[in-house]
Amino acid sequence: MHVHHGNMDARVGFDRVIGHEMSGVVAAVGAGVADVRPGQKVVVRPLDPCGACPACNAGHAHICHKLKFLGLDTDGAMQELWTVPAHTLHVLPDDLRMDHAALIEPVAVACHDVRLSGLQPGEDVVVIGGGPIGVLVAMVARDAGGNVLKSEVNPNRLAIAETLGFDTVNPVEADLQGAVEARTGGKGADVVFEVSGTQPGVDAMTAVAATRARIVMVAIHAQKPSIDLFQFFWRELKLIGARVYEPEDYETAIALIAEGGIDADTMITDISPLSDIQSAFQALDRSPTAMKSLIKVEGDL
Amino acid sequence: MHVHHGNMDARVGFDRVIGHEMSGVVAAVGAGVADVRPGQKVVVRPLDPCGACPACNAGHAHICHKLKFLGLDTDGAMQELWTVPAHTLHVLPDDLRMDHAALIEPVAVACHDVRLSGLQPGEDVVVIGGGPIGVLVAMVARDAGGNVLKSEVNPNRLAIAETLGFDTVNPVEADLQGAVEARTGGKGADVVFEVSGTQPGVDAMTAVAATRARIVMVAIHAQKPSIDLFQFFWRELKLIGARVYEPEDYETAIALIAEGGIDADTMITDISPLSDIQSAFQALDRSPTAMKSLIKVEGDL
Repeated sequence: MHVHHGNMDARVGFDRVIGHEMSGVVAAVGAGVADVRPGQKVVVRPLDPCGACPACNAGHAHICHKLKFLGLDTDGAMQELWTVPAHTLHVLPDDLRMDHAALIEPVAVACHDVRLSGLQPGEDVVVIGGGPIGVLVAMVARDAGGNVLKSEVNPNRLAIAETLGFDTVNPVEADLQGAVEARTGGKGADVVFEVSGTQPGVDAMTAVAATRARIVMVAIHAQKPSIDLFQFFWRELKLIGARVYEPEDYETAIALIAEGGIDADTMITDISPLSDIQSAFQALDRSPTAMKSLIKVEGDL
Repeated sequence: MHVHHGNMDARVGFDRVIGHEMSGVVAAVGAGVADVRPGQKVVVRPLDPCGACPACNAGHAHICHKLKFLGLDTDGAMQELWTVPAHTLHVLPDDLRMDHAALIEPVAVACHDVRLSGLQPGEDVVVIGGGPIGVLVAMVARDAGGNVLKSEVNPNRLAIAETLGFDTVNPVEADLQGAVEARTGGKGADVVFEVSGTQPGVDAMTAVAATRARIVMVAIHAQKPSIDLFQFFWRELKLIGARVYEPEDYETAIALIAEGGIDADTMITDISPLSDIQSAFQALDRSPTAMKSLIKVEGDL
């Protein structure tokens, strides 16, 4: 949607084939590729690091200083045949549904966020923001044993969260901080995920946090919001930036999808053929309730 | 100085004996106190937690929700005889100089900050702000093996930092980010301590940070500054709030002072008798170069 809206024109240009959340089948492999073979179901982890920058040298290649993101900086998945570096592939179980597998990339984002939070079973969690990533973070956090409360202002998204079995608060209508205190005996949330990208979300993240809570910054804040740093000092809070994923997050996401830890059917709003891609983008843009719209790209395999 | 300026009147009142950075000798112990005996040199860790709140229950008694801070919430050390709970005492080596020992409390703050940063030997460190706590943080970080650069705008404080052997940058006159990049081969600082309590300090803390850097929030920001949250996401930065100290930080501070890891003589600007306390506060308030002014309180021991 960011590309569709034109917000990434400078980076992406106007003749790019986009797409990085996908599942597919290997058509052919290059010389020397031994780990995968034609016919296998795979997903692509769309990160191509430089291998030589300070981040790569420190073992953080997923946030390489010169990272190429496949599908934005190179052509992506919305085509019949896609050529990618072999190191980006994860092989899937043979019986995994390909529509469910198309969710692995965003689920891996959520797995990365939850892993970096250090969430322990039984801890109290607040997820601020109920879009697709917020819902996936909530599902992964619940699967990891967290007691999850979702905060979201959009009634349609609140309804989806409730359908998925989450306790919810609409902070415009109710006292979020009071609700968290009541749930936790005055302690506050051990882990907070800020997925809203808004100033009220940033205000809430410190207000609901327990002493020594971990706050994971999932949202992309283009502005520089005002933050209650006193609360960071006073309660020894920790803020943890989290971006994309590492290979182990993909493996966790594949296992979660395979085991049903993610309600994939609720996350997939609709599936359109590649020929309808323009109207699919427009419909997704208009929908207040849509989560993920899939595009079915069939080649001559 | 905060109390002297009247900024803590609501909390402290007008008849409080203040003082919490101290060293002393045990005059007498209450019934059942076995760990210390009269005549021993001691320091007081001036924290009296409630023992029952969520922070105490989680093992973080030093940031108890109902913490009594001795010398602010109760009478403090600027008197001839001070009665404190036995659990607040740390016994000192017999040969430790008592003027040096008076620095243990602020050194323990710095030890807590450095410990929470997870600093490893050889890592690149930037300390933003060169007041007494900034200087102590820099000394403790250097003792822990960090390659420390100090950023400070006050020429007098810069001169002190240079006397203590630190590389320095005045960010008003020079490009701090460029200097950090040059020192680190473009990597940035692995650990940043924000001790300035200013918006430019908060801007600098994200600008100089390496991928996955840890930024320790030492300063008390009464305002809510604007923060580059995008950089937290983009480089997976971590912000760590740090407040006061835990018992192990006191033990580390005592060892550092005893071993000469802290240049105590440079930190102690002057020593005044209790009878001159008013003029000592006024002189400290006027001095652009003062670090720590000690008050010598002698009783009938």
